[in-house]
Amino acid sequence: MPWPAHCRHVTGEVGIYQTLKHKPLAEVRAAIRAGQYCSHTAGLGKGFLQANLAIMPEAYALDFMRYCQRNPKPCPLSGVSDTGNPMMTTMGGQIDIRTDVPAYNIYRDGRLAGSVTDIRDLWQDDFVAFALGCSFTFEHALQQAGIALWHIDNDKTVPMYRSGIDTVPAGPFRGKMVVSMRAIPEDRVAEAVEISRRFPLAHGAPVHWGDPAGLGITDLARPDWGDPVPVPEGHVPVFWACGVTPQVALEAASMPICITHKPGHMLISDIPEDAEIPILRPQDQHTSQTQQGETHDTHA
Amino acid sequence: MPWPAHCRHVTGEVGIYQTLKHKPLAEVRAAIRAGQYCSHTAGLGKGFLQANLAIMPEAYALDFMRYCQRNPKPCPLSGVSDTGNPMMTTMGGQIDIRTDVPAYNIYRDGRLAGSVTDIRDLWQDDFVAFALGCSFTFEHALQQAGIALWHIDNDKTVPMYRSGIDTVPAGPFRGKMVVSMRAIPEDRVAEAVEISRRFPLAHGAPVHWGDPAGLGITDLARPDWGDPVPVPEGHVPVFWACGVTPQVALEAASMPICITHKPGHMLISDIPEDAEIPILRPQDQHTSQTQQGETHDTHA
Repeated sequence: MPWPAHCRHVTGEVGIYQTLKHKPLAEVRAAIRAGQYCSHTAGLGKGFLQANLAIMPEAYALDFMRYCQRNPKPCPLSGVSDTGNPMMTTMGGQIDIRTDVPAYNIYRDGRLAGSVTDIRDLWQDDFVAFALGCSFTFEHALQQAGIALWHIDNDKTVPMYRSGIDTVPAGPFRGKMVVSMRAIPEDRVAEAVEISRRFPLAHGAPVHWGDPAGLGITDLARPDWGDPVPVPEGHVPVFWACGVTPQVALEAASMPICITHKPGHMLISDIPEDAEIPILRPQDQHTSQTQQGETHDTHA
Repeated sequence: MPWPAHCRHVTGEVGIYQTLKHKPLAEVRAAIRAGQYCSHTAGLGKGFLQANLAIMPEAYALDFMRYCQRNPKPCPLSGVSDTGNPMMTTMGGQIDIRTDVPAYNIYRDGRLAGSVTDIRDLWQDDFVAFALGCSFTFEHALQQAGIALWHIDNDKTVPMYRSGIDTVPAGPFRGKMVVSMRAIPEDRVAEAVEISRRFPLAHGAPVHWGDPAGLGITDLARPDWGDPVPVPEGHVPVFWACGVTPQVALEAASMPICITHKPGHMLISDIPEDAEIPILRPQDQHTSQTQQGETHDTHA
C-alpha cells in the first residue's frame, strides 16, 4: 500500500497541523481517518490520552501481554482489542484501529518493511491490537507545573538511549530497556519524580537520575534515537522508561508480521489524560465519558 | 486431595497464627509450604503485597488477561506465570504457586468442587497462574492514617455486595462488579479516596460513596458475602471494587478446571506493599528487593 500522494504532500507541512491543533478531537480523528492528515500527533486532541500501537497475530498475544505486565514502566498497557476485531472498544466509542492512526510501520520477520497510512488491506482475522500509554501525558503535567522541556520548546525529538537494563522477558519478547532523557533543574527533580509517578500509564516515575553511567549510557550527546539536548549547569539528566522499548522487543520476536504506529504518529483515544483508569465501558460511550465504576454520589 | 489432618486441626486456631504474626516472611512462607499453616493471611508477612490467585488452562489465559486489563479496579493484575511454570518469578525469588498459598479452591465447570492445601497433584503443563492485588494494601494505608476499619477491629469479614455495574466482558469472562463497603467518617472520605487512589494494584480509589442505591444495592445489612457492619451517624458508606469480582467471572466462564486461593488465604509475595510496580527482576532476586529499573542515583 503506497503512501497516498496527498499525504506525501502534507507530511511535514504545518498548515493542516496548525488548523487541527485548535479543533476538537472528533474533527482531528475524522481528518486522520479520511487520510487527510498523516503526520505527528503531539499537541492534537488536547487533554486526551495518546497511545503507542502494536498489532500482532493472536499466537503471540499472550506472551506480549505477559511482557507488558512484567515491564509496566516501558510498556504501560492501556487497551487490548478482541481477536480479529479492529474496534478498540475500551478506548473510544468508534475507534477503528485500521484507519484512526495517522501512519503505521509494517514489520515482517522483525524488520521494518514499509510505512502506510491505512491498514485495512493488511488486517487479519487473528490480529490483536495493543495500545500502550506514552510520555505526552506526563510531559503535559510537567509543563503545567512550570517545568520547561527543552525538546518541546525547541521542536526536537526527545533523546532516547538503549540502557544496560534488561527487561523481564516473556516468550520471544526481550531486550534492553530504552530510556528517554529530560534535563530538569536540580531543585525540581523531586517534584518531577512525584508528578510523573502519578501517571503509571505514561511510564510513571523516572527509572534513574544523575550519572548516565548508572544506566550504562556513555555519551549523552549521542542518543540512539531522537535529538541530543543540552544539560545546562544546575540541571540533572532524568531518565524515564520509553515506549521504544516494546518496539525493540517486537523486533527481537521476529514475528512474520507485526504493525506499529509510526513513531510520533499516535492513536488519540477518547480517554481523558487524567483518568484513573483507561477504560470506557460500553454503556458510557453512548452517554458521557464517565469512567468505569465512577458513579460516586457527589452529594455524599 | 483431602485436607490434611494437622491443617483441619490448625484452621481456626490462633496459636500458630499468633506466632507467625511476628515472624519474618521467610518463616511464614516455609510454614505455609510445609502445610503447617493453612489459615488466613491477614496480618502475616507485614509490609509485603498479598494477592488473590487464579490458575487456568492457557486456552483461557489471553481472554482472562484482557478481562483484567478492561476491569483494572476489581482485577488489578500483579503477576502472571509462564505457561506450565509454577514459579511466580516476578513476585518473589522462590514462590512455587502449587504450595505457597495456605489453601486453594478447585472449580470444575464453574462450580466449587473442593478445597485443598497443596495443588502439586493437580498442576497441568498448560496452566497459567495469575496473581491479583487485594484490599489489604489500602486498608493498611487507611489505618496508618488513623482511619479505623470496623471489620478489622472487630475481627469480621468486610461486607461485599453484588453491584448493578456490569464489568467489561472479554471472551467467556463477564459478570457484575462485586464491591466491598467500609464506613468512613464524613469528614475523612476525601482523604480515604485520595489515599486508596495511590494503590492502583489494590483496587485504587472507591467506585462509589454515599447512597448504596447508586450501585443498585438495596440493603446494606444483607451483604452477599462477608459480615454486615454498622454505618454510625456521621459516617458514609464507601464502596471499593472487590477481588470477588474475578471469582464471579471465573464461575461464569465455566472452565473444565480452574483453581483460586481460598478467600482470605492469600499469596504473600516478596514485593514491598508500597512498591511503584509489582515486579522483581531476575537480577534483583539474588541481591536485594530493588524494583525494576529503580537504580536512581540518590546522590544526584
